[in-house]
Amino acid sequence: MKLTEAMQACTRTVEQALSDLALEPAGPDARVWQAMRYSLLAGGKRLRPFLVMQSADLFAVPPEQALRAAAAVEMVHTYSLIHDDLPCMDDDDLRRGMPTCHRQFDEATAVLAGDGLQALAFEVLMGPETDSDPAIRCQLALDLARSAGAPGMVGGQMIDLLAENTCYDLDTITRLQAMKTGALIVWSMAAGGILGRATPAEQAGLTGFGQAIGIAFQIADDLLDMEGDAQSLGKAVRKDADAGKETFVGILGVEKARAKADELVDEAISSLDLFGKKADLLHDVARYIVARQN
Amino acid sequence: MKLTEAMQACTRTVEQALSDLALEPAGPDARVWQAMRYSLLAGGKRLRPFLVMQSADLFAVPPEQALRAAAAVEMVHTYSLIHDDLPCMDDDDLRRGMPTCHRQFDEATAVLAGDGLQALAFEVLMGPETDSDPAIRCQLALDLARSAGAPGMVGGQMIDLLAENTCYDLDTITRLQAMKTGALIVWSMAAGGILGRATPAEQAGLTGFGQAIGIAFQIADDLLDMEGDAQSLGKAVRKDADAGKETFVGILGVEKARAKADELVDEAISSLDLFGKKADLLHDVARYIVARQN
Repeated sequence: MKLTEAMQACTRTVEQALSDLALEPAGPDARVWQAMRYSLLAGGKRLRPFLVMQSADLFAVPPEQALRAAAAVEMVHTYSLIHDDLPCMDDDDLRRGMPTCHRQFDEATAVLAGDGLQALAFEVLMGPETDSDPAIRCQLALDLARSAGAPGMVGGQMIDLLAENTCYDLDTITRLQAMKTGALIVWSMAAGGILGRATPAEQAGLTGFGQAIGIAFQIADDLLDMEGDAQSLGKAVRKDADAGKETFVGILGVEKARAKADELVDEAISSLDLFGKKADLLHDVARYIVARQN
Repeated sequence: MKLTEAMQACTRTVEQALSDLALEPAGPDARVWQAMRYSLLAGGKRLRPFLVMQSADLFAVPPEQALRAAAAVEMVHTYSLIHDDLPCMDDDDLRRGMPTCHRQFDEATAVLAGDGLQALAFEVLMGPETDSDPAIRCQLALDLARSAGAPGMVGGQMIDLLAENTCYDLDTITRLQAMKTGALIVWSMAAGGILGRATPAEQAGLTGFGQAIGIAFQIADDLLDMEGDAQSLGKAVRKDADAGKETFVGILGVEKARAKADELVDEAISSLDLFGKKADLLHDVARYIVARQN
């Protein structure tokens, strides 16, 4: 299980970095840092950091630099989970089998923890330790701001919230997921290329891989939501169907959705052709994304 | 009324820039942009943008560059107001005499609008139009991330939320306000210096001015909260006292608080000595901050 081992090793490194980058201060403001740390260190697949580390590795970027970009994207992802779980959004009590941030602390602290994590992501990215060339740091931050903001993740979440009252077609659902989940996954792949001074062709390959696995990831999520059980997922299941939300699986049916996911995996893998065998672990990631059980 | 005219002219320019930088797209994600625009363009003193424009003017920075930094800080300020107004925070129905964002739209949209505005602030700042030198853009964004995040504004809001159950002393209240309100005001002054390649002595003068007026601004707010009326303020009054929160005025009393504010104005003005008469309008800002009626 080369991929499993590599992901576990990466998880340990990333979690140490997250812990080091979000140190709790003394004083009454400690509470917001406690909430930030609680959610940052609550486990998870750490898929986005792994993609940053692997895409950076294609260009032999020093791991300690890539690690900062990896931590930044995980901070943005974590803030989005905290806010998505709020009572006014998905109203979830559990996340990865643990109380969600607003259940463990309170709603106001959870809103602030999310806000603080978004700012911290940019602070980490802008630090000179990320790359000695400020033009590279600017590129990373500009792309992250777009991917995380209303043109990306936030806009996708908006479309998703409106889904309960609207019947979307396949194009709109694809756009929703490309923004909501895809944008940060694409950024994670692009980040390695930016740090590694990739050529435009290399950058296009990385981005293509990210786009394909982003959609495949969401189809796999929909299938798990239909077929998985709450215990192994650590969260409530069948929420989308119960909320009357249209999904890839709802429109395509289970069989066609599974076939589409497999097709996207092939597409992702061929996007990395120009990297040859160096990209073997990323090929495995693409296969893992549709085969995972949680 | 030279200051009033200058602030009004600046407000018009800044509001045009905010409108241009947050254009509503077609599609179902338009709703989050509508909420962002609603709050961005809901009026206000535009004090932080004015400070950016004035501090930049000391160094003859092209106004179109300073305007982007001015828009960025107003986006962060607006996002903080949207989130502070939420039911789980201050639970306010009115802001500047208009329904707050979550009353006009809904809570989920308001959370997302705030999140989107924070990201947009960094997107605007990182654009090459802000400054052709990426090192300058990195410095602006790094400082803004710290000022807006848990080490600054977000941490200050956390301390403020806990104030209802805790009796703070003057030092803690000063720290709270320096973080919650002061950090963005200091950033606004510093931004002009960063864009203008200020010397360390000049930068210290700008920062000193920002720190002093930041606290003076809050003391003036406390006095207005005690003595103002809801109509001219466009929001509920005496909320702090009713919530049992300690304030500058609560600890010092009205007379001493007013004297402290005047002292801070003098301190602010003398921080700008090295700029001579060029800083006259900033002197007026400092005086205005404690004399304003809303």
